[in-house]
Amino acid sequence: MNDPVAGAGMDSQIPREQLALMHAWWHAANYLSVGQVYLLDNPLLDEPLTRSHVKPRLLGHWGTTPGLNFVYVHLNRVIRERDLNIVFVAGPGHGAPGLVANTWLEGTYSEIYPEVSQDREGMRRLFRQFSFPGGIPSHAAPDTPGSIHEGGELGYSLSHSFGAVLDNPDLLVACVVGDGEAETGPLATSWHGNKFIDAATDGAVLPILHLNGYKIANPTVLARIGNDELRSLMEGYGYVPYFVEGDDPEKMHDLMARTLDYVVADIAAIQQRARSGVTERPRWPMIVLRSPKGWTGPKTVDGLKTEGSWRSHQVPFTMEKPEHLGLLETWMHSYRPETLFTPEGRLRPEIAALAPHGDKRMSANPHANGGLLMRPLRMPNFTSYATPVAEPGTITAEATRLMGNFLRDVMRLNADARNFRVFSPDENNSNRLGAVLEVTNRAWNTETLPDDDHLAPDGRVMEILSEHTCQGWLEGYLLTGRHGLFSCYEAFIHIVDSMLNQHAKWLKTSREIAWRRPIASLNYLLTSHVWRQDHNGFSHQDPGFIDHVVSKKADVARVYLPPDANTLLWVTDHCLRSWDRINVIVAGKQPELQWLDMDAAITHCTAGIGIWEWASNDRGGLPDVVMACAGDVPTLETMAAVDMLRRHLPQLKIRVVNVVDLMTLQPNSEHPHGLSDSDFDTLFTLDRPVIFAFHGYPTLIHRLVYRRANHANMHVHGFIEEGSTTTPFDMAVRNRLDRYHLMADVIDRVPSLGPAAAYAKQAIRDKLVEHQRYVTTHGIDMPEVLGWRWKAGAP
Amino acid sequence: MNDPVAGAGMDSQIPREQLALMHAWWHAANYLSVGQVYLLDNPLLDEPLTRSHVKPRLLGHWGTTPGLNFVYVHLNRVIRERDLNIVFVAGPGHGAPGLVANTWLEGTYSEIYPEVSQDREGMRRLFRQFSFPGGIPSHAAPDTPGSIHEGGELGYSLSHSFGAVLDNPDLLVACVVGDGEAETGPLATSWHGNKFIDAATDGAVLPILHLNGYKIANPTVLARIGNDELRSLMEGYGYVPYFVEGDDPEKMHDLMARTLDYVVADIAAIQQRARSGVTERPRWPMIVLRSPKGWTGPKTVDGLKTEGSWRSHQVPFTMEKPEHLGLLETWMHSYRPETLFTPEGRLRPEIAALAPHGDKRMSANPHANGGLLMRPLRMPNFTSYATPVAEPGTITAEATRLMGNFLRDVMRLNADARNFRVFSPDENNSNRLGAVLEVTNRAWNTETLPDDDHLAPDGRVMEILSEHTCQGWLEGYLLTGRHGLFSCYEAFIHIVDSMLNQHAKWLKTSREIAWRRPIASLNYLLTSHVWRQDHNGFSHQDPGFIDHVVSKKADVARVYLPPDANTLLWVTDHCLRSWDRINVIVAGKQPELQWLDMDAAITHCTAGIGIWEWASNDRGGLPDVVMACAGDVPTLETMAAVDMLRRHLPQLKIRVVNVVDLMTLQPNSEHPHGLSDSDFDTLFTLDRPVIFAFHGYPTLIHRLVYRRANHANMHVHGFIEEGSTTTPFDMAVRNRLDRYHLMADVIDRVPSLGPAAAYAKQAIRDKLVEHQRYVTTHGIDMPEVLGWRWKAGAP
Repeated sequence: MNDPVAGAGMDSQIPREQLALMHAWWHAANYLSVGQVYLLDNPLLDEPLTRSHVKPRLLGHWGTTPGLNFVYVHLNRVIRERDLNIVFVAGPGHGAPGLVANTWLEGTYSEIYPEVSQDREGMRRLFRQFSFPGGIPSHAAPDTPGSIHEGGELGYSLSHSFGAVLDNPDLLVACVVGDGEAETGPLATSWHGNKFIDAATDGAVLPILHLNGYKIANPTVLARIGNDELRSLMEGYGYVPYFVEGDDPEKMHDLMARTLDYVVADIAAIQQRARSGVTERPRWPMIVLRSPKGWTGPKTVDGLKTEGSWRSHQVPFTMEKPEHLGLLETWMHSYRPETLFTPEGRLRPEIAALAPHGDKRMSANPHANGGLLMRPLRMPNFTSYATPVAEPGTITAEATRLMGNFLRDVMRLNADARNFRVFSPDENNSNRLGAVLEVTNRAWNTETLPDDDHLAPDGRVMEILSEHTCQGWLEGYLLTGRHGLFSCYEAFIHIVDSMLNQHAKWLKTSREIAWRRPIASLNYLLTSHVWRQDHNGFSHQDPGFIDHVVSKKADVARVYLPPDANTLLWVTDHCLRSWDRINVIVAGKQPELQWLDMDAAITHCTAGIGIWEWASNDRGGLPDVVMACAGDVPTLETMAAVDMLRRHLPQLKIRVVNVVDLMTLQPNSEHPHGLSDSDFDTLFTLDRPVIFAFHGYPTLIHRLVYRRANHANMHVHGFIEEGSTTTPFDMAVRNRLDRYHLMADVIDRVPSLGPAAAYAKQAIRDKLVEHQRYVTTHGIDMPEVLGWRWKAGAP
Repeated sequence: MNDPVAGAGMDSQIPREQLALMHAWWHAANYLSVGQVYLLDNPLLDEPLTRSHVKPRLLGHWGTTPGLNFVYVHLNRVIRERDLNIVFVAGPGHGAPGLVANTWLEGTYSEIYPEVSQDREGMRRLFRQFSFPGGIPSHAAPDTPGSIHEGGELGYSLSHSFGAVLDNPDLLVACVVGDGEAETGPLATSWHGNKFIDAATDGAVLPILHLNGYKIANPTVLARIGNDELRSLMEGYGYVPYFVEGDDPEKMHDLMARTLDYVVADIAAIQQRARSGVTERPRWPMIVLRSPKGWTGPKTVDGLKTEGSWRSHQVPFTMEKPEHLGLLETWMHSYRPETLFTPEGRLRPEIAALAPHGDKRMSANPHANGGLLMRPLRMPNFTSYATPVAEPGTITAEATRLMGNFLRDVMRLNADARNFRVFSPDENNSNRLGAVLEVTNRAWNTETLPDDDHLAPDGRVMEILSEHTCQGWLEGYLLTGRHGLFSCYEAFIHIVDSMLNQHAKWLKTSREIAWRRPIASLNYLLTSHVWRQDHNGFSHQDPGFIDHVVSKKADVARVYLPPDANTLLWVTDHCLRSWDRINVIVAGKQPELQWLDMDAAITHCTAGIGIWEWASNDRGGLPDVVMACAGDVPTLETMAAVDMLRRHLPQLKIRVVNVVDLMTLQPNSEHPHGLSDSDFDTLFTLDRPVIFAFHGYPTLIHRLVYRRANHANMHVHGFIEEGSTTTPFDMAVRNRLDRYHLMADVIDRVPSLGPAAAYAKQAIRDKLVEHQRYVTTHGIDMPEVLGWRWKAGAP
């Protein structure tokens, strides 16, 4: 048994009077929670309850709330006694009534929302607004003071918590993990976050697994495997579990208080050892809190067990039966509100005195409004990482490797501030960002062996083979006011589609809340992309994440497709300086031809889209065809097509348009980066064919441009789910994105080419046959494809 | 210590000669694996190796392969000795060289692909095709005999395995879990699958956690937490772990053989007890196999440790240095191929005799080509579950509740066949499918309490709060030839976006493989949808999954939006009868007005789209406006708008078009369900305004119809991410999908209405103000909205 307190009897060291006051706070929070679910008016029950005092639609979740309230008041005690710095994360989905109740009791809610004042009228408004039109949702949300964690979609509480404590050595995140949530995959692996925390330089997470017993309709797995197995599981995850179990409030208060005293002292001791130079992986404590679902609610409703049952999950009873009105009144009176609140509706001062002061209140902790603490990164001059490009399309570079050099110096310049990390599912080096390991290590705080590479407890490269965990850590890090970058295989970033949704919603909602300060953007580098997964095959080929991102609110989402290294540097610099956004950068890691020197890259990226005059031969006039491209491989294939077209069909007037910022294609009524119709028409003409080579699914371009004048003439080549295991160029051929198919499309769309067209088409067909024969014989692409260089611009 | 074999010394019960032959098989498989990664020719090394024998591009993954080969040959032994029925699931991502090698050694590969014969020329082709253009990928894929598990995206091996053994009491799935994969969230929670398995009526999963030690660049978490902690973790997950650790092949063969003997006997004993009536949750055995990454490969390359290091992850060395050719030759000769293969390139008969016979070969197990075993469901007549609809739009029903009645009888009719289950993250009842619990229970095989509801080990309703696990179970169930349905909250189905991608890819690829037989479709019911998440708020509102599905290959994806209960019944029946598809059904669970009686529903759904003549007043002529709708709430709002427009502006000629099958909107060149242009134009006209009320994001409709003649006149109302916590009707209002905004749009778009238009517009504005005032005062919708019924069709 690891439990030094469970067997210690009832001779508490915590004064009974204090526990009694805490019990009163708990009852006050429970009362306010019930009130939020049920009442429109008569908040203090001054008059007999009538149906008109009760909401016509009863919505909300009672089941998890009393447990959250219980934890909250106990955390307040240790904050006050030990001057701790605690952020509260409520994993259980629908705990908002409890969180909101406590923040109101602490005064923070009324400070932020003065109309919800700490008096009878404020209490009435507090009740009314909950799950009411124009009001607040039934789960913790950006409008909840002290919250960094949306309670809607389950599974991310622990990874958010670990992200929050990175580089915050004085911060403790108390993370209540719901036993429903604990069944999700993302949560199940996020327990391992303890192996990536450095007790010397990071803060601590105290997981409190709340065995509430039931989900909506079913028991929870972890509540039904017995304490021995659960203990093994938590020990296997690397924790020392302490069990706080029961339903008698008096005993539970005493046990919880002593347990919390023990575990926060243990955490302090672990940190003390680490900070005095002891190197070990600590076994951090965690708490298993087993309490009845809907604790203190009605024991039975209509003869059916309710407290301690799944029937408490949401609203324990409706008003369909008249006798339920009395049941509600009895329930609410059971908390004896007259002993908790003054006749004016204010929490009685002796109870209110339990709250910590000022920023120590969990509802006012500045880490939970991270923008308050966010400092801009110190940025090196990105232009000094440029690759020289004397002539376009003649030298190669690995774009992400140069980006890695830049990130290395971002890391170095902010080493003292300790506010920048990079995250990746074991792909930092594979994605060519290895230079950052010149100035830091990979975070790793468990066994190491001599042959290991750059592992250290305080490493700033966070790698675990879980996209969910990487995303959750990064979100927690950003939400507490720091900066970061997530690099990932393009196909597998879909794993976090749903997390992206929720973060985008958080950002959208936060922007509408005056007191939420902007946080750093969530930046993705998607590399190892669809066009260079020829060796991994179909399962690794999927450019659809950008489709998903584009469906987010325009203010939040940005998608960048830099065609080469210098443009990638500009985009990276730009994204790391931005805030409240989700920036997706798609860029290949392979050696690729370079197009723009740094000056040209700056001009091009600043506009986000533009004509490449040096590649075009329309000389300011109206072209015969516009060849547009977005993405590195599509740009390469377009340039090769242009090069050959200009040499073989010199009379053809071609305009080359390259797109870096995908959002420029949308109308400016839809997106702030969108081009005006006149600017768009200037680039793409009103009536000329546009052959558009695109990195992703062709429909995405159509979706962005369908309102433009020339849309009917736009012919998009992109990923059509062909190719699988083959060569890089053959991937392009099979998806008709290659230079030959682009040329053929140009020839088909431009009517004025005359007999030269038929000749050129035949030559293209021959080339495709030759290609096919070559790759199936040799397993590599034809030398003329691999060795192609841009010549059209040469004299 | 749980380990009865680890301390048992070296006095093996397994004859040395047999172990020697198994060692030879293992070496043969390893030899073939190396050959696949490296060689184009000279497969038997008959002549000295030259650069021209080696592939120009070296691709593939060696690291995990020898471990997989080791497990494979040991499983073959127990299959033969005990006549077991085993399916092999390879969790490690890139194990294809090993799987393919073993299937070739067993003969299955050549039976399926005769050109890859069991001789020198076949071996040459076997080597050449691997990671070669037009060849096979480096992970297990549909073309791999015996595989039900794509090795590309990691995390689903165990949930697939548990899905496969449900209702297959004689089947054992040996599931190798990679220690990289084990870090993913979906894998971390899928260990709990053991609590949902009935030893009496289901088969067994034997997890083999392969501690290979390293991912691409980092150590793995589970390889570095020590055996005590790992043992606790596995015991916490409910298993009894047995450790097989080492690098000496002789000792490892002996230990693995004895361990496997023990655990398969233990599994048999567990099943025997359960099948003789003992009720208990068994502690199933699992194996921890710790072996060096790249085992039997080069110890060092260029002086750097390679065997047992992350450097073995992919291709251990390239051919850039000339001396590496010799290194490769030495390595391949170390397996002594001349002792393994005849001079003709055939596995020597005494080694080949180790393989099981016929269907007992894991590569030929029919469960791994589930279509072979798939029997169509016995289906009740769906029309007998119809709700009577005497007049459209006058009575209400809960569509999914009627669907639940239908599913109950599908469950009942197939109870003996045991080939149908429903899956849900704790939402089966919440989604109104509770009727199925009249004939079965929820699967649950751990502690139960008196107040629990319908839990039993052999229950056929699979509920765990993990969308990943539900999806993985269902995929495993379908891939082994059975049928099922996944019901989920619409917003949270995005959690499995990436799993959907991979399953869609599996289906697409399987269709191109002649020997893969069709399997039942993956059917989703998305309910609790965006328009009725007014109480849960923004985090629960997201209709974007259908956008994601529509981007899949046309042959695979279907999206249905039945507007009421009878159409939902038709669609459900249709989907459960289909194969090799992904069907997404979106339907609300709340009481809603009913539109079509069963005869009308059949006619309408069979077409997938159609004019509702009874609601239209264009009488076969050209209308002034087309009012289109797709989805239950959009249909309701459209009908209310039509009703009011017809009463207040009787001169307006309206055509109502309802869409059930979303794919009808696409051109028939893009999708087999797509309407021809002429049919589309007949419905939507060439030039009349179309006011389209849509369930999801408006851009999805534009994406589907942008090529249609009348596209410029299509005005789509849908979800624009407004609303959050409010009333159902206010959700529609805030997203401009409500009857009033639809009416206003009609009036704006039809020029011929004259002075009546201005009057009507003012009345609409007044109604919206009245609505706003009403909901913020009362918290519910106006009675005239809630009580609205269709009247336009009445005399």
